[in-house]
Parts: sequence; C-alpha cells; structure tokens
Amino acid sequence: MQLQVHIGPGPIANPQPSLVIDMGIGALVEFTGVVRGEENGGTIGGLVYEAYQPMAEREITRIVTELAASRRVLGVRVVHRIGRVPVGEAAIYVAVVAKHRAEAFALLTGFMDRLKQDVPIWKTDTF
Amino acid sequence: MQLQVHIGPGPIANPQPSLVIDMGIGALVEFTGVVRGEENGGTIGGLVYEAYQPMAEREITRIVTELAASRRVLGVRVVHRIGRVPVGEAAIYVAVVAKHRAEAFALLTGFMDRLKQDVPIWKTDTF
Repeated sequence: MQLQVHIGPGPIANPQPSLVIDMGIGALVEFTGVVRGEENGGTIGGLVYEAYQPMAEREITRIVTELAASRRVLGVRVVHRIGRVPVGEAAIYVAVVAKHRAEAFALLTGFMDRLKQDVPIWKTDTF
Repeated sequence: MQLQVHIGPGPIANPQPSLVIDMGIGALVEFTGVVRGEENGGTIGGLVYEAYQPMAEREITRIVTELAASRRVLGVRVVHRIGRVPVGEAAIYVAVVAKHRAEAFALLTGFMDRLKQDVPIWKTDTF
C-alpha cells in the first residue's frame, strides 16, 4: 500500500493526490477539511493548529495501517497543515485510493473519527 | 445551493471543483470513479458509456435536490464522461461541499447508490 503522511505549515495548495492510479484502482475519494468563519457562535479569522509532530505522524501511520488491513485499500495520503490557517483554507487533506468506492469511503470516514481522538494535533487558538 | 451537472465526452482532466468555498463551508468531499483494467475477470482496455443525456441530467438534479433537502449541503458538482473511457481514467467525478463532513459524505454515498439505480447512463461495451 502507498502511504504518504505530511504535517507542516504552509497552504495545502490545489491538493493533488500524488498517489499512483494503477490498473486495479476503481475509486479515489478525497476529503478537504476547511476552516469555517465561526467558532462557538463567534466570527473568527482562522484557527491555529499545533502538533506533536513525530508522534502525530507515527499515530496516523498506525491508524491507516490498521484500518487498511481488512480492506482492499491501495493508497492513502494525509496532509495536515499546522500554524495559522485562515478561514476558507484547508487544514487537512486526505486521499484514499481503493479497488471499490465503498472501501475508500469506509477507510476515510473511519480515519477522520480516529484522527480527532488519537492523533496529537490540536486547535490552540483563533484569530 | 450551488448545483453543477455536466455529462459529456472527453477526459475529466484534473477535476477541480468550481464550487465556491465560502465562509460557511467546512468540508469538501470528492469522489472520482476510475475505469479498472478488468471486467468480469477479463482484462479490458476501457469501457464505453452511453447516456440518455437530457433525462440523465434532470434525474441527477432531482436526486441531488432530494438528498440535499435534509442536510446542510451547500454545493454539488457532478461530471460524467460518456463514450470510450480508457483504463485508469475517470468516468465520473462528484464533489460536495457542506458545513460538516458527515453531511457531505452522506450525500455523496447516497447519490452514488441512486445514480446506478435511477440515472440513464450505461456501460455499453468494453474495448
């Protein structure tokens, strides 16, 4: 399985998966999580994310590997931006390629649930 | 709600959603359905799709409108290629923007189920 994990500052620009689409792939599912202009009812300019980076990357790798074990998932790419992320810009991008779409959707939604629980990346502030 | 439906020949190149990401949008979910190199156990070069086009576009609009009614979905873009689609290329691209990701995923998976059942677009041949 192709696995690409990147956590870092700077915009997630035109997120193109660099996952290889080979003959066995039938589905590419992509999720982009965007910062909204409100937080707890108030208007904000953006969010600030912080990560305990080596551990976050290890944890993402562990979760993806575990979720992919029971599915014909052929590749996963996870990009998480840290630092200040303005409203309307992406904080996270996840791409999954699989033989069939159901497997790709299941991995992606499962991953997002686990990400919030288990991966040391936090919103630290608004601006 | 923004709704864009396009059915036509020619590659779905670098599918960029032209949906507007405004301040209320927290999630963009994209699905690309790719032609695989095998069909019923045999190796193929591609698939040929045909559509009863005006009815297919109306039906897609109807399904999306129905599915979006109960969700905070803010935009949907559906592009379906017809004619010959070689292995490794996209036959369909669907993008959904919503306030939250769960709403976007639910609409997208619901739409794909309905598309296969209700929309007059068929695989007519392999090559």
